[in-house]
Amino acid sequence: MGENRGVVVKNDLDPVIAAKLKRTPDGLVAAIVREHGSGDVLMLAWMDDEALHRTLTTGRATYWSRSRQEYWVKGATSGHYQFVRNVALDCDGDALLVTVEQVGAACHTGEHTCFHDELPVVTAS
Amino acid sequence: MGENRGVVVKNDLDPVIAAKLKRTPDGLVAAIVREHGSGDVLMLAWMDDEALHRTLTTGRATYWSRSRQEYWVKGATSGHYQFVRNVALDCDGDALLVTVEQVGAACHTGEHTCFHDELPVVTAS
Repeated sequence: MGENRGVVVKNDLDPVIAAKLKRTPDGLVAAIVREHGSGDVLMLAWMDDEALHRTLTTGRATYWSRSRQEYWVKGATSGHYQFVRNVALDCDGDALLVTVEQVGAACHTGEHTCFHDELPVVTAS
Repeated sequence: MGENRGVVVKNDLDPVIAAKLKRTPDGLVAAIVREHGSGDVLMLAWMDDEALHRTLTTGRATYWSRSRQEYWVKGATSGHYQFVRNVALDCDGDALLVTVEQVGAACHTGEHTCFHDELPVVTAS
């Protein structure tokens, strides 16, 4: 944690994969994290090329923290690791679906998933 | 479609909800779209405040197209509408989980979901 981005060897991601990515203005793709087995959507996190490279080559979900501006191995401080079973890129290259074995709670609040706050919606048909 | 953003009345979103959002540098939150019933993760799209407002008040999933730079009612051209059953915001306000009844295929390629491209991953435990 607390790595200096300037020191980390950047862009070790396979260039064939890197060429498919469509990034946000700050160089990130969205990573939807789904639980293996239950299929529950646990959280959304962000990856730059290096975080995706680390995820694919270590099998431990690794993200880029927008708030802390550092790489973040999920579970490194909480013990709530995510062991990656599958990663799929979407048709336009701006999102990943990461299927994981989740240890403990996915959310830092202790909840199973991060999606607690239901918004009022008018249902149509 | 093809609206001029300058003409659209912006920011009709409930200010209580707007205050919770943590947006990308271009003003967007990620919307994970999940199918009601199957629980399948169908796609990822993007919403600005106005797209979220329209989604919540019409019950039809409405996104901001980053490539076309316009609002986009899913299904308006394809007929593959998404009727919204539930919307939940995550704990840090940068992602929405939108549960929908999907008409037809979610992906413009005709596939059920947009996540076709499996990437090679080393699994750990």
